[in-house]
Amino acid sequence: MCLSHGPGRRCPDRDAPGVRTNMKHVISVLVDNEPGVLSRISGLFSGRGFNIESLNVAETLDPSISRMTLVTRGNDQIIEQIIKQLNKLVNVIKVLDLTGFEYVDREMALIKVTAESASRAEVLRIADIFRGQVVDVSAKSYTLEITGNDQKIQAVIDLLAPIGIMEIVRTGKVAIARVKKEGGNSGGKQEKESGS
Amino acid sequence: MCLSHGPGRRCPDRDAPGVRTNMKHVISVLVDNEPGVLSRISGLFSGRGFNIESLNVAETLDPSISRMTLVTRGNDQIIEQIIKQLNKLVNVIKVLDLTGFEYVDREMALIKVTAESASRAEVLRIADIFRGQVVDVSAKSYTLEITGNDQKIQAVIDLLAPIGIMEIVRTGKVAIARVKKEGGNSGGKQEKESGS
Repeated sequence: MCLSHGPGRRCPDRDAPGVRTNMKHVISVLVDNEPGVLSRISGLFSGRGFNIESLNVAETLDPSISRMTLVTRGNDQIIEQIIKQLNKLVNVIKVLDLTGFEYVDREMALIKVTAESASRAEVLRIADIFRGQVVDVSAKSYTLEITGNDQKIQAVIDLLAPIGIMEIVRTGKVAIARVKKEGGNSGGKQEKESGS
Repeated sequence: MCLSHGPGRRCPDRDAPGVRTNMKHVISVLVDNEPGVLSRISGLFSGRGFNIESLNVAETLDPSISRMTLVTRGNDQIIEQIIKQLNKLVNVIKVLDLTGFEYVDREMALIKVTAESASRAEVLRIADIFRGQVVDVSAKSYTLEITGNDQKIQAVIDLLAPIGIMEIVRTGKVAIARVKKEGGNSGGKQEKESGS
């Protein structure tokens, strides 16, 4: 989806040199762990017609502070505006658009796959190759836990799909910055991180 | 936090027989992957003063459909009301309060921990014991990927904290139902699951 464009235009493309219109952004937000914060943050994105591809939020070491990782796509300039608005929210402690940084990202998926007697060995082989764990077994299914980046999770899904995926739950990306790059966009509340 | 109570009352306790007032609920919601859905759903909880302890949402096999797993605490009756309201939202396909079911749940955490020459071996030992992976290394830190249930993640955090945790990102729980229990509360849109 290329929400920042009218019909008939192809994505990804460029409006002006240096402005990417359909870039994936991984945004890490440190927030107060209070009711209403998630609703306000997600509302900032939906208010501009931006879809959040994945999001997760959970406590940090300090239970009063949560960290949110969200993935969205869109025009660099509009994302920058949204980040500025995020920074203005009272319960937002820090915003970091990881797109300007080197980062490590991982995702976890639980995949419940058909495992009849004929296919069990193959399911276990695939789990083994991708260093997955079998976390549940029933008479007709295995539930696998797989962690990795997008490509790895997709590769496992592609291999298991012909056997029969009954259910899948993905956490969405979590990411941790590695090294700061020159010109990284990190918003205005960079140094106030606490509790994690 | 015991949001459904006034000051001076202890949690967990009971208002009436069979009504648990501070029960943890793991709720799985299948939704259309469209802007605004997350904001509306999280707004239903915050509108009643319920805090969402953790939440994650990502695509299923069908990219037009996402699955959300959220963890909240509160009075059984109010949670039931919220689930009924969730079921009324246009973009909500299915709601399942896993509290009434047996389920498998897992969480992933990325933990960046200080790893000076003196502590590196100990960090690696802890990672090894808990079957964690080292996913990034810098001159002064290791980043570990740990998966498991609440207790396991907490155990790793407790062991690494004295060494020095620099940053932590948790995905929040993802869960898959195992077997239906009698009397499980699953809302009104149970059988319409598609795409996963």
